[in-house]
Amino acid sequence: MIAARLHRYHEKLVVENIAEPKITGPWDVIVRLGGAGLCRTDLHVQEGQWAEKSQVALPYTPGHENAGWVHEIGSAVTNVAVGDTVIMHPIVTCGLCRACRAGDDVHCEESAFPGIDTDGGFAELLKTNARSVVKLQPSLHPKDIAALADAGLTAYHAVKKAISVLHPGTTAVVIGAGGLGHIGIQCLKAMTAAEIIVIDPNEKARALASEIGADHTVAADGRHVDTILEMTDGKGAEAVIDFVGESGVIPQGIAMLRNAGSYFVIGYGEDIVVPTIDVISREINFVGNLVGTYNDLDELMVLAAQDKVTLHTSTYPLDAVNDAMADLDQGRLQGRGILVAA
Amino acid sequence: MIAARLHRYHEKLVVENIAEPKITGPWDVIVRLGGAGLCRTDLHVQEGQWAEKSQVALPYTPGHENAGWVHEIGSAVTNVAVGDTVIMHPIVTCGLCRACRAGDDVHCEESAFPGIDTDGGFAELLKTNARSVVKLQPSLHPKDIAALADAGLTAYHAVKKAISVLHPGTTAVVIGAGGLGHIGIQCLKAMTAAEIIVIDPNEKARALASEIGADHTVAADGRHVDTILEMTDGKGAEAVIDFVGESGVIPQGIAMLRNAGSYFVIGYGEDIVVPTIDVISREINFVGNLVGTYNDLDELMVLAAQDKVTLHTSTYPLDAVNDAMADLDQGRLQGRGILVAA
Amino acid sequence: MIAARLHRYHEKLVVENIAEPKITGPWDVIVRLGGAGLCRTDLHVQEGQWAEKSQVALPYTPGHENAGWVHEIGSAVTNVAVGDTVIMHPIVTCGLCRACRAGDDVHCEESAFPGIDTDGGFAELLKTNARSVVKLQPSLHPKDIAALADAGLTAYHAVKKAISVLHPGTTAVVIGAGGLGHIGIQCLKAMTAAEIIVIDPNEKARALASEIGADHTVAADGRHVDTILEMTDGKGAEAVIDFVGESGVIPQGIAMLRNAGSYFVIGYGEDIVVPTIDVISREINFVGNLVGTYNDLDELMVLAAQDKVTLHTSTYPLDAVNDAMADLDQGRLQGRGILVAA
Amino acid sequence: MIAARLHRYHEKLVVENIAEPKITGPWDVIVRLGGAGLCRTDLHVQEGQWAEKSQVALPYTPGHENAGWVHEIGSAVTNVAVGDTVIMHPIVTCGLCRACRAGDDVHCEESAFPGIDTDGGFAELLKTNARSVVKLQPSLHPKDIAALADAGLTAYHAVKKAISVLHPGTTAVVIGAGGLGHIGIQCLKAMTAAEIIVIDPNEKARALASEIGADHTVAADGRHVDTILEMTDGKGAEAVIDFVGESGVIPQGIAMLRNAGSYFVIGYGEDIVVPTIDVISREINFVGNLVGTYNDLDELMVLAAQDKVTLHTSTYPLDAVNDAMADLDQGRLQGRGILVAA
Repeated sequence: MIAARLHRYHEKLVVENIAEPKITGPWDVIVRLGGAGLCRTDLHVQEGQWAEKSQVALPYTPGHENAGWVHEIGSAVTNVAVGDTVIMHPIVTCGLCRACRAGDDVHCEESAFPGIDTDGGFAELLKTNARSVVKLQPSLHPKDIAALADAGLTAYHAVKKAISVLHPGTTAVVIGAGGLGHIGIQCLKAMTAAEIIVIDPNEKARALASEIGADHTVAADGRHVDTILEMTDGKGAEAVIDFVGESGVIPQGIAMLRNAGSYFVIGYGEDIVVPTIDVISREINFVGNLVGTYNDLDELMVLAAQDKVTLHTSTYPLDAVNDAMADLDQGRLQGRGILVAA
Repeated sequence: MIAARLHRYHEKLVVENIAEPKITGPWDVIVRLGGAGLCRTDLHVQEGQWAEKSQVALPYTPGHENAGWVHEIGSAVTNVAVGDTVIMHPIVTCGLCRACRAGDDVHCEESAFPGIDTDGGFAELLKTNARSVVKLQPSLHPKDIAALADAGLTAYHAVKKAISVLHPGTTAVVIGAGGLGHIGIQCLKAMTAAEIIVIDPNEKARALASEIGADHTVAADGRHVDTILEMTDGKGAEAVIDFVGESGVIPQGIAMLRNAGSYFVIGYGEDIVVPTIDVISREINFVGNLVGTYNDLDELMVLAAQDKVTLHTSTYPLDAVNDAMADLDQGRLQGRGILVAA
Repeated sequence: MIAARLHRYHEKLVVENIAEPKITGPWDVIVRLGGAGLCRTDLHVQEGQWAEKSQVALPYTPGHENAGWVHEIGSAVTNVAVGDTVIMHPIVTCGLCRACRAGDDVHCEESAFPGIDTDGGFAELLKTNARSVVKLQPSLHPKDIAALADAGLTAYHAVKKAISVLHPGTTAVVIGAGGLGHIGIQCLKAMTAAEIIVIDPNEKARALASEIGADHTVAADGRHVDTILEMTDGKGAEAVIDFVGESGVIPQGIAMLRNAGSYFVIGYGEDIVVPTIDVISREINFVGNLVGTYNDLDELMVLAAQDKVTLHTSTYPLDAVNDAMADLDQGRLQGRGILVAA
Repeated sequence: MIAARLHRYHEKLVVENIAEPKITGPWDVIVRLGGAGLCRTDLHVQEGQWAEKSQVALPYTPGHENAGWVHEIGSAVTNVAVGDTVIMHPIVTCGLCRACRAGDDVHCEESAFPGIDTDGGFAELLKTNARSVVKLQPSLHPKDIAALADAGLTAYHAVKKAISVLHPGTTAVVIGAGGLGHIGIQCLKAMTAAEIIVIDPNEKARALASEIGADHTVAADGRHVDTILEMTDGKGAEAVIDFVGESGVIPQGIAMLRNAGSYFVIGYGEDIVVPTIDVISREINFVGNLVGTYNDLDELMVLAAQDKVTLHTSTYPLDAVNDAMADLDQGRLQGRGILVAA
């Protein structure tokens, strides 16, 4: 089958013919891909930022936002059948460890993360397991929702954590209205009555943010910290939801936070640097966010089916993967890039 | 009356005669001090670390851990009478703002913090209000429990936040078994079945920790991060409760944290510096802790009455305040220093 | 001043001239009423259902949903000034007891409940205190929002409790789309993405429910339990929110509940009768709801200001109070009845 | 193999020879029983109380509190090996449904409940699956902890739910210090600082309760409701944890409940009958409890390993099962009865 593979860090992916995956265990599921989302993490992977953490052996196939149709199943699989339309939870989990049993499958002790530490979805076929496939209405096309599998799921997961502090009368500041941010905004709108303020340097991104639920948008113009403070009676926001995590936004985000407020870290790249005296005297919190659980993905698919979350995508054929990555890197890609194999 | 006042940052306190406080509002309460706890924050105050945050005008009287007997009350005070033994919640709150009404009185919008931004308890009399006095059994002596008013309360508050992640089978690492830490250990013991591991460089502090509830103690010997990881199957602790926040402990504490774990910040002095990629890939959290609420203090007094929390104190006369501060600064003070006015 | 007073249980109210209330304490506030909501509880009061619980001495003035303008204030009141537009939290609370301090002011240990156990708002003036007045935009007219003070607040409070079980993909069944129910529906819509199914025997009420946010409405036609089960794949709803509590709806509501689901009790009149074997084998919960807190009322006023909650009201002059009560009793009153004094 | 089987409701069990269970799926696990706890539910089963709910076909083997050693495993089982000492979570779950994934495996949509709806542990061998076996230290003997598998687990689960309302200064009333109650008391002691008051008519049970952690015991002497109210300043308890659910205790328990308190239903037999006006005016809750999750069982085994929970048991050979059931029924069995097959 055709796959786009990373052979060396800092180099382009190679589109090539490789062997198809095989069923080896009773819970295995092989999926024919209908769409694979392209994510800023794929750029970070290419740059080697994940090399030490993932310990993946090169060459391998990136792509961790996958949807398609079930192609083959193991002997004990009962929850999907060949031909079913599915979206894949990004993590292949064991179902036996404490984390899986606690509803925190993201921290499974025996997991694989296709596209990060094993072969992913920039290919025709992907091997996953029965615990990772969410069955969809056959009317949905995988390419239209694939990017919800990780970008969307991460945004949903962070928003779900934020909900408990976002009662009516509170403010949520969203930093970054790109691939993840524009899903986060929609999730906030669907599940809270908080006032949503979105900060982005890009005018088109801000216009999109307003369309999909932002109550206010603010340009990242150098005095946006003051602007947010003015908009919140000098007190700041109960929640800052940071989908950027680089380009100097972190100290700005912290300055926008209300006393006792929480900073939700989703985007990454730079360091959090904060004096402990500020952390304690303002009693603020920093909340890490990886990706959502299987149930989170299931819930997000409900919001998608209710048209409360819609994706803005640009489609590329699989063999144009390097063009797509360049477009993403250079800010030419609005919404989310989707690779389609055939 | 006699009071110990700070006239200039970086200088010793001056013990001098000043005017007594007066009742001016219907909710005012004036307390004759029976004991005032000495806290590392008093050193930080003297060093000017709080100058910008508190905006206090010098000279003023430090001392924010106070207990005594009611001396005079305003016309509308109904919850205490002259002569009652009381411990004072450190913050004088309004009872009308959203935070006060939400059970989060620490973030009161119209508060005063005697000893930090107004005159405190290194004196014979202190002015507070009806919302800040917790009535005690007359059998209790103020000097025996005064330090629970802030040090104890802060430790209790942090432990109470940590409880929700500390089910049986989990590990809580306590960094620092000094004034706050040794109360935190007792609170953990009283309210959880978690395994408690205490790290301290001081052998006496570790011995005390073992006596009052630590399941294990670890010397801060340079390889203690590895020791903690070995004790937790290489996974780290669900909660790291840091009562130090300086001397380089923060990166160590982060390294001891389990994936999805939470770092409770109580001690302060240095910066948290952490790459966002670690925050998101490990999905870890940082939780700020200021001081507990009035109800927290009331609950802590229950633990004290049940003998589940006992204070180890050293008493000094008020006019020896500078000796006490030097002892604290130079690590000669075990347990908590208490100043007694008369 | 003019007031409508209950002299004997089971008799009509008497509209008569009585003495005006006086300021007696530093936190007292006297409000000139702009609107007083009429509630099914007023009928229950008249029938004597509350006599034993409230221990109120007759004659007295009912009316517990009040809004107006500040008329006079006590010496220590700082949060409102004469002339301010205010809505009154129904309970006059102390601000000193544990419940008040815990954000649970409804269970204040030293409270009064004007209209239930002391004189209420079916009058020209009402005495309350500084802790019970929520300041509003001057543009709002008291009669338009008065009924949010108790009916709305109770509905909001119950919905807020239900939110934690109402993630996307869940179902909330609302029993009764009358005065409280139609506010509850709007609160659910504003704060959750759950599917909202509303049951009511009245066609007009169902039509209104659909307009304001119900995803489905079901006639109470005798087979509605089966209908709900069919709509939920035979499993029932995660939350049943019962605004009726009489006319035989309780066993129906229990039958509609999913395993591990929660039954929110708001309406009252009949008994809950349920075998403990059902409670444990289905692991279901029953959650009592009185009225919301001051902060809940503040949050509800935000939803009102955002036009996410709008009240459907019918206005009556105060001296037509008995007509209004008859209309309510006989089901002729859609939305909420509001009494206006002048 | 030998098994004790129920052939007809209301009749004694028949000890007889039946075929051994066989591995048929990749996740199956067969366990050689070392101990099977006897529970009041087994009496209810025999009386036919569960017939309609369980739909079990007679004859079948009761016994739902099981521990032993792994005898045989399916092809995909990786978490236990033949010979391992294990305790069995009572429910055999799928690991694929939303409930399993949410950490609520008790409500698994494809579950079996050996001993209730399929063959249980009153036998030499029991068939379960990989998701239901908790691996233990080999030093533990199954007969010493078997009863923790359901009775203990249920008590633990209920106490864990109650913890959030049981801060220091609160009161937990435990009704019934029998098989479940005496575990519940130990769990409360291990995980809260609440005051624990235990009510039981039996003097020996009260003496045991005092030994294992009750702060006070009260005889069920007809005026015990008043006694509890006196012990709680007339206010009642924040939590009533009812391990009886019959013999008229329910209205007593409700009367002991503080406003805003919660009634935890564990024991069963009679109905809850409560006027909705009481539920709303006192804002009380009723919380159903079935059995704990797999993770709850794992946590309880930690408490057992820490000697914080110890079981008081009486052992019977499997063929004396009917004697054991008679002893339980007639109140001659203190602590928990354990059947041992060989």
